[in-house]
Amino acid sequence: MAATRKDSVVILIHCKDRKGIVARVSGFIHDFGGNILDSDHHTDEETNDFLMRMEFATEGLQIPPDEISAAFAPIAKVFEMRYEVHHSSHRTRVGMLVSKQDHCLADLLQRHRRDELHIDIPVIISNHDTCAEWAHLFKIPFVILPVTKETKPQQEQQVVSTLKSHRAELVVMARYMQILSADFLAQIGCPVINIHHSFLPAFIGANPYRQAYERGVKIIGATAHYATQDLDEGPIIEQDVIRVGHRDTVDDLVRKGRDLEEIVLARAVRRHIEHRVLVYGKKTVVFD
Amino acid sequence: MAATRKDSVVILIHCKDRKGIVARVSGFIHDFGGNILDSDHHTDEETNDFLMRMEFATEGLQIPPDEISAAFAPIAKVFEMRYEVHHSSHRTRVGMLVSKQDHCLADLLQRHRRDELHIDIPVIISNHDTCAEWAHLFKIPFVILPVTKETKPQQEQQVVSTLKSHRAELVVMARYMQILSADFLAQIGCPVINIHHSFLPAFIGANPYRQAYERGVKIIGATAHYATQDLDEGPIIEQDVIRVGHRDTVDDLVRKGRDLEEIVLARAVRRHIEHRVLVYGKKTVVFD
Amino acid sequence: MAATRKDSVVILIHCKDRKGIVARVSGFIHDFGGNILDSDHHTDEETNDFLMRMEFATEGLQIPPDEISAAFAPIAKVFEMRYEVHHSSHRTRVGMLVSKQDHCLADLLQRHRRDELHIDIPVIISNHDTCAEWAHLFKIPFVILPVTKETKPQQEQQVVSTLKSHRAELVVMARYMQILSADFLAQIGCPVINIHHSFLPAFIGANPYRQAYERGVKIIGATAHYATQDLDEGPIIEQDVIRVGHRDTVDDLVRKGRDLEEIVLARAVRRHIEHRVLVYGKKTVVFD
Amino acid sequence: MAATRKDSVVILIHCKDRKGIVARVSGFIHDFGGNILDSDHHTDEETNDFLMRMEFATEGLQIPPDEISAAFAPIAKVFEMRYEVHHSSHRTRVGMLVSKQDHCLADLLQRHRRDELHIDIPVIISNHDTCAEWAHLFKIPFVILPVTKETKPQQEQQVVSTLKSHRAELVVMARYMQILSADFLAQIGCPVINIHHSFLPAFIGANPYRQAYERGVKIIGATAHYATQDLDEGPIIEQDVIRVGHRDTVDDLVRKGRDLEEIVLARAVRRHIEHRVLVYGKKTVVFD
Repeated sequence: MAATRKDSVVILIHCKDRKGIVARVSGFIHDFGGNILDSDHHTDEETNDFLMRMEFATEGLQIPPDEISAAFAPIAKVFEMRYEVHHSSHRTRVGMLVSKQDHCLADLLQRHRRDELHIDIPVIISNHDTCAEWAHLFKIPFVILPVTKETKPQQEQQVVSTLKSHRAELVVMARYMQILSADFLAQIGCPVINIHHSFLPAFIGANPYRQAYERGVKIIGATAHYATQDLDEGPIIEQDVIRVGHRDTVDDLVRKGRDLEEIVLARAVRRHIEHRVLVYGKKTVVFD
Repeated sequence: MAATRKDSVVILIHCKDRKGIVARVSGFIHDFGGNILDSDHHTDEETNDFLMRMEFATEGLQIPPDEISAAFAPIAKVFEMRYEVHHSSHRTRVGMLVSKQDHCLADLLQRHRRDELHIDIPVIISNHDTCAEWAHLFKIPFVILPVTKETKPQQEQQVVSTLKSHRAELVVMARYMQILSADFLAQIGCPVINIHHSFLPAFIGANPYRQAYERGVKIIGATAHYATQDLDEGPIIEQDVIRVGHRDTVDDLVRKGRDLEEIVLARAVRRHIEHRVLVYGKKTVVFD
Repeated sequence: MAATRKDSVVILIHCKDRKGIVARVSGFIHDFGGNILDSDHHTDEETNDFLMRMEFATEGLQIPPDEISAAFAPIAKVFEMRYEVHHSSHRTRVGMLVSKQDHCLADLLQRHRRDELHIDIPVIISNHDTCAEWAHLFKIPFVILPVTKETKPQQEQQVVSTLKSHRAELVVMARYMQILSADFLAQIGCPVINIHHSFLPAFIGANPYRQAYERGVKIIGATAHYATQDLDEGPIIEQDVIRVGHRDTVDDLVRKGRDLEEIVLARAVRRHIEHRVLVYGKKTVVFD
Repeated sequence: MAATRKDSVVILIHCKDRKGIVARVSGFIHDFGGNILDSDHHTDEETNDFLMRMEFATEGLQIPPDEISAAFAPIAKVFEMRYEVHHSSHRTRVGMLVSKQDHCLADLLQRHRRDELHIDIPVIISNHDTCAEWAHLFKIPFVILPVTKETKPQQEQQVVSTLKSHRAELVVMARYMQILSADFLAQIGCPVINIHHSFLPAFIGANPYRQAYERGVKIIGATAHYATQDLDEGPIIEQDVIRVGHRDTVDDLVRKGRDLEEIVLARAVRRHIEHRVLVYGKKTVVFD
């Protein structure tokens, strides 16, 4: 997966397949003097869905990047497209949700610091104070919003309004350990990425490492997916696995799993913020 | 995993953990002039199970290999051990069950021919004639025992008696696609290894590749396990996985899965016939 | 990697990057009523090379597939493109070279038989008779051309003329164990894929598994590449690896390596015959 | 790889293979009332080397742990053994060497903080001040010892005396980027683990990621090994790999490599401090 190049525009498209889409979109870009740097598309033969990502240089472009989206609207209308236009100069604003475990948060913050991820992190929200030190070290506002069964609706409202006030464009659950309600997801209005500590759909639910240990599996995994109402049923962005053996205790599985969780979540976030992921139905297309 | 050396004896032991087991067993071997080539053991701290594999050279051994088992009985009694003694010169007799798909069978037969697996294959049983050519090529008796829902009990009886008459010590379901009844498993009296075309416990049941496709997973797997009454719940011997992407159709998953199934089944059979696998509870210990 | 769809045309393009290539090529396809099924391209920023693969349906195409190449020539001229046009209905004619070891050959033949690879195998050439049985089983002409140091030039001439008389469009060295001369490669006039039993560029030369064993590596690999004059320096198509440990002898490495060699070679052949590989400089682009 | 249990003793043994070693050593442990928790051994058939790791509980042991080594000496003499005795309660003192890149250091420090590694880190030495913040955060003394070609011998002396004054028992080069002289290695008197950013023996020397990019490999790797006089020739402890493709620039390889380097180094350190690694000749035995 290449780094997104500087000074480029990405257009993501989803519609029903018809003849001439590639020609029409690439013609549109060419007409404005754009040079296509990368293009990839996929047609799902079963559903007839057409999904495309095109990235083109802004150098020499004879239209202000801000006006591309409007200029493209007539084409989108013809083909009944759902589309997004993103400028590479824009840093996605990522709101982080975290609970007591800090490894995924620390990993993302370090990737952020060495500018491996082209993001801003305006706020970290937690129901505990455990991760405060990381926020302090990286000089990011840290908001503690404790939650109990009783206060959950109100706490979620506070989380939503905090994220909104920081204009989050992506929410990352870096081991947040709380199930977000349908209400939350409806209100937040931006994608939410979760890391699940198992190779979904195996070991849904609580204590997946304990479940894996008891089943005696020889491989464990982690899964990054978009959060949806149906817990653990969200579209999968990335998965990876590692071997385990009979000498591994549940604690060893947890330890090995941490490494997996960090890497799988980081890859999913990277792909999302490079606009390489398109959701359709219960699945994703990931353009590497 | 090393090749089992020529002219050696393997002793497999399972008992509750107590002090002095390793010393007692290695002393027993030493007393008869045996040189230990390989030893490995595992103690499950949660259950206090002690599981051990010791392999020692027969060269210089001052007891006929056939008498080792009887000589060891008093020690086994003291520690209340379940144990097995195997001689490396013995080729495990493997009865093969197969249905229409031939890839796992063909793979095992080729490994057998280049003596990668130290086995004999006295018989191949199938409910179809599709794989007859392979049996013919490798000069192995091929028995067709068709099965319908109605004739299943009788057909299973025929399978059992055919396997018994060929003195099978291990049964390998190389994509047999039939569920063996509890009766069958009780009667057959030897281990049965099955290859399941998914990363258990994910996608239990029919059409796992179709299920995986519809869920949009990024990795698929295969699982070799001992067959038990509870379908897909048998102790897992080996698993492996491969990446898939949005461009992969169900047919692509099936194709990629075939490679996995072959390799995972071959590894499981190899480990079993090298006496590296011990079952306890719902799990296995695999001594590599 | 998706199965190439039925009734489609693939166009492969290599030129220096300029504005408008995607628009021009997709416009060409659209003008003839073609529906693009899959498109992928890559621009090497260091060298300014543009490399593209486009696949479009023949259904509804208003030009006979045979005339596409000629019709495309004027565009190719403008952009100074090197290009190829392939029809999915065509089965690539693959000439096999093999020596004593049969595993890669047997693997490819079985994939061929279940039509996993859309190829014809008009001839198998060997310097030994070891693999004759496989050729016989699959009813493929088998030509034995023994070779010694002294007779190598003449033998190579025979190999070339045998492959040419069978109109081979791809030559696969399925563990042929002979180094093809520059003369051979110049004369054969079609790509040659070799499988090297190491993770190139590690362990170039003879006995790579012995070298790996002595170095004490923890992972071994296999590499499929196009054969070039500089032995082991050809553009790499595919590589894969497997873990090894201190218990693995050289024989174990050889055994584990066989599985790798089969799979890596099969993937490389598959990608080549689906027209997913473009060579530029010493490297390949593989469009999955 | 299991976590080393609390309150146990590990004995590591290397000698030429003879009959009775396992019986003699396990008898020794049993005589003092020790319960063997884990035992593993390997005999190299080519060289006749015998290598063993035994771990036994201190609970109920009828000898003070400090006296085990002396009590074992007579047995060691009989079999001409090289041996080590380690108590699990002891935390290995690890001196860290680091240069400008902080990812491996930060990773090890975080594992240390959550007590994933049973170590103490008495000092971090660097030739630059880049990593000072990490040392500060984790409250570990940070010593800057700049080095130039001219001052290298003196600087190495300072590094040696700093490490010695902090009683380092293991030195970890967490991307130190300096070649340690034979003199340094002779004087330091404890093992030194280095992380090399390639899949050794491929791409020895400078800029391995650039070399890998130019060769067009499909997989890159990282290697943790003990430092020896011959650069990049030290005994390998652990290796791992990741896939790369034509879209990956050199920067992408560097980024993907960072994740590998962290994980491979952490695994090697973990195995070393759990006394699972034995060096013999140019290789290691790693008891998982």
